[in-house]
Amino acid sequence: MKTYLDCVPCIIKQAVRAPRRFTDDPVVLERILRKTMLAITEFDLSRTPPEMGCVLNHIMNRELGNPDPYLEEKRRFNMLASELLPGLRKEVKSAADPFETAVRLAVAANYIDFGAPAGRTDGLLAALFTEALSQPIKGGGASAIKRLRELAGEADSILYLADNAGEIVIDRLVIEQLPRGKVTVAVREGPAINDALFEDASVAGLDEVAEVVTSGVDLPGTPLNACPPAFVERFRSARLIISKGQGNFETLSDEPGTIFFLLVVKCPTVAQHLSCEVGDFVVAKNASN
Amino acid sequence: MKTYLDCVPCIIKQAVRAPRRFTDDPVVLERILRKTMLAITEFDLSRTPPEMGCVLNHIMNRELGNPDPYLEEKRRFNMLASELLPGLRKEVKSAADPFETAVRLAVAANYIDFGAPAGRTDGLLAALFTEALSQPIKGGGASAIKRLRELAGEADSILYLADNAGEIVIDRLVIEQLPRGKVTVAVREGPAINDALFEDASVAGLDEVAEVVTSGVDLPGTPLNACPPAFVERFRSARLIISKGQGNFETLSDEPGTIFFLLVVKCPTVAQHLSCEVGDFVVAKNASN
Repeated sequence: MKTYLDCVPCIIKQAVRAPRRFTDDPVVLERILRKTMLAITEFDLSRTPPEMGCVLNHIMNRELGNPDPYLEEKRRFNMLASELLPGLRKEVKSAADPFETAVRLAVAANYIDFGAPAGRTDGLLAALFTEALSQPIKGGGASAIKRLRELAGEADSILYLADNAGEIVIDRLVIEQLPRGKVTVAVREGPAINDALFEDASVAGLDEVAEVVTSGVDLPGTPLNACPPAFVERFRSARLIISKGQGNFETLSDEPGTIFFLLVVKCPTVAQHLSCEVGDFVVAKNASN
Repeated sequence: MKTYLDCVPCIIKQAVRAPRRFTDDPVVLERILRKTMLAITEFDLSRTPPEMGCVLNHIMNRELGNPDPYLEEKRRFNMLASELLPGLRKEVKSAADPFETAVRLAVAANYIDFGAPAGRTDGLLAALFTEALSQPIKGGGASAIKRLRELAGEADSILYLADNAGEIVIDRLVIEQLPRGKVTVAVREGPAINDALFEDASVAGLDEVAEVVTSGVDLPGTPLNACPPAFVERFRSARLIISKGQGNFETLSDEPGTIFFLLVVKCPTVAQHLSCEVGDFVVAKNASN
């Protein structure tokens, strides 16, 4: 998905709002905004929205003098999700359809997202998971979940692209439903908003149930043209890709391969792409095969 | 009122949306956005939001090759308001308090505003005026209207700063309530979004009931530091100033003199300044004397 003109005011809004989480120094806030605007003025709109988001993140982190400003928040959401995990795992085990239940919870967990306009915070997290069990699934809906289960049973290699910290703890419920020894989980190489890094995958214990690698880039998405060849090779050779979140969708929506996108829709432009509404829970298979 | 950081994404959003009213050429749309961003990157935030808006308008009009893209819309709203005027004038004449009724209608007419995020369109205009008769007035409320009436009775010179085309037709109802021979109406010198120009004041017949001048600038507001000395002198010597709309408020909120601001609040930043909500009808006297 390319970057639309409408993505530009959205990133400029984030350039005003995101830094306020970390500083109230008006000089720093104004400098981050001006530098971001100047950089975006030159941004090639054929690149993807997460690559534009990355421009802001690099400027913000540099101006704040903090390479990972969301670190505390990421840890807090990992902890919160870890507290909820045992109860949710019981929910999965006792469900009529454990696979679908795990997928629903993993989609709902994608609400944990500070980079997107409609992200939720901790107080609502538990309620969100309850909601997730009955919420209609858009995109391909129940039949996409069924197809995902079938393909997961057949695939000899599954690449699971994680999105946010906190969320990655809940992703474990899906990974536990997938065939053992066949799953690779990819996290970001370096800080990208609140996206999950190696540390977060470890907290989630994913190294116990899957191989964990990084995308090779510190981007809130997976633009293959920016990823190192080893990761691209891993992506191309995977028989099934499970892609979490909007940033991964925005960067991979036009890629071939068997990709299932699991996300909560957080902006009108992506909603339009997926023919659904902001806030919808989506499980959608890509069109290419 | 200075320009806040939050005003910046708002103007960038307008740089995406406003030109779409006039062209669907993606190259032109992208060029307007990029040029506006580049110009705003250099904008001095101690200047007022309408001055920033003017940056967009100049770029947009130049790139569209059209010095007055809103011309048709302005004429349409002048016509619509003119159709409604006789009925509204009857409403004023038969009202228990004709002055307050005229002021309420003139405030409501400020909804006609393409430059602001919450502007209304023609279908809702008639309903809006009915609503205006009972809608609570914020800012100084009824007592501000009472004080305005008193000061208008005493003042030997009244400067009425018009805002939008269409709206200016309804402004006539207030001007008819003011002492004859003492009112000067100021419109913009040149095209500024849908703001009223000399032509619009003529359509409204204001030249029959008042002197009509221009602010000397093509800005959607009245920043005195940008206006020619003759206009500033007229402003300073007026005993009472009636200022319509958000653009005039944003540029004159810190000026001395006896100024009454009549407007519909169209953005959260102005709402915060006036301790009210977006959508509120406001009649507020400035604090300075």
